[in-house]
Amino acid sequence: MPTDAPLYAQVEHALSARLGVDLCPGDRMPTEDELIAEFGVSRITVRRAIQNLAAKDLIVTKRGQGSFVAAPHIKQPLTALTGFVEDMEAQGLPSRARVVKIEEIIAPPDARRALELPLGAQITHIQRVRLAVGHPVSFDDTYLPVELGRLIAQDDLENEQIFTLLESRHRTPLVEAAYALQASTANPEVAEALQIAEGDAVFRIERTSFTIGQRPVDHEILHYRGDAITFTTRLPRPEKGMEDQQ
Amino acid sequence: MPTDAPLYAQVEHALSARLGVDLCPGDRMPTEDELIAEFGVSRITVRRAIQNLAAKDLIVTKRGQGSFVAAPHIKQPLTALTGFVEDMEAQGLPSRARVVKIEEIIAPPDARRALELPLGAQITHIQRVRLAVGHPVSFDDTYLPVELGRLIAQDDLENEQIFTLLESRHRTPLVEAAYALQASTANPEVAEALQIAEGDAVFRIERTSFTIGQRPVDHEILHYRGDAITFTTRLPRPEKGMEDQQ
Repeated sequence: MPTDAPLYAQVEHALSARLGVDLCPGDRMPTEDELIAEFGVSRITVRRAIQNLAAKDLIVTKRGQGSFVAAPHIKQPLTALTGFVEDMEAQGLPSRARVVKIEEIIAPPDARRALELPLGAQITHIQRVRLAVGHPVSFDDTYLPVELGRLIAQDDLENEQIFTLLESRHRTPLVEAAYALQASTANPEVAEALQIAEGDAVFRIERTSFTIGQRPVDHEILHYRGDAITFTTRLPRPEKGMEDQQ
Repeated sequence: MPTDAPLYAQVEHALSARLGVDLCPGDRMPTEDELIAEFGVSRITVRRAIQNLAAKDLIVTKRGQGSFVAAPHIKQPLTALTGFVEDMEAQGLPSRARVVKIEEIIAPPDARRALELPLGAQITHIQRVRLAVGHPVSFDDTYLPVELGRLIAQDDLENEQIFTLLESRHRTPLVEAAYALQASTANPEVAEALQIAEGDAVFRIERTSFTIGQRPVDHEILHYRGDAITFTTRLPRPEKGMEDQQ
């Protein structure tokens, strides 16, 4: 943010940087008076900053009660292979990851088949909770062939994205991914990770990403909170349909 | 089915025509001996017909117990705007519809906005349960502008598809549709329609279909049984990702 940006934009930027850090979903935002004192700006400037955050659905203003940090609801276009951090950046939402587990295991059958590995192959399993605005949104199991996985396991997975690491650091460009989407409900493990109740709705996404030569390099099982995401797409009517109406 | 088709194919065809009619998911298939007697064919012919139905996941053979009609699980590519009957035909599954309700009402806010109608506009609301292999798979609310809806309401909605009726009979070609997909759980109404328990997983899909000139003509809320469908797609990595790795 350049220091010659309008004052309201500077206040807005300073506040949005705190979302998910010390201001989490459900938290009350500082009052207008507190913000005036903190930033040394006018009430009109503070109000404009608050209105802009509300317009971006980052906060909710309740009449007579003040403003509160909103639980993020993500509208995610199903149009391109993108990672969680990229998706959140596109929506202006601060995001981070909490690593639950990194292990080397015998590849479970689904991951082994997806990565086209031989029976009994070792695999790197990385389990993370992804947070948007400090709110757990996705619980991810990532499976990588062990040669790649050992490299990635040494990286800073709280602050770096696996897609970026694969592409920028480990010379493994991603080309496309196969997705399978299911509606499901949270088992105890998923519920605990996402801070929801057992039986709450979750999106279960299986995603296998391919590098050059159609070689699968990354297999993921993603569990999104059902109340946190809507996937959107636009689909064309096939030509046949147009002919049928003649 | 031509009468000079191989005998096993004729038996297979005759059996698959009964799926969802008098042979519903969970039902035991007739035994080999019964089929031999019924069709006057050899055991090898009966076995081949049964094997083919099992290979298409239409029936499940349990060792020592016989064969049973399978609950359909649909793999639905998210690549083109297609209707339920078209989707089921593409998978070789017999399908039909049960009309629950047809009514003219003041357009509810979401449908009104989606169809770009003025406040207070009348709308035709059609509620159907869609069955695959005699098994309820989707519970659909369709909203149509009332001029079109009055025409469609007179059609045979148990046996004809709204998309086909719009395109073939009512000169309204479909061009594309906007989709919004959510993971949710069944409320009592949805649970009863889909014969599942309240709180079971459902896919909630909002779909608005457009005719020529980007004019919205059909707004639907579809609830699919979570255990009955997987949506699949392949997405390319955006060019930017490829450049980043340089």
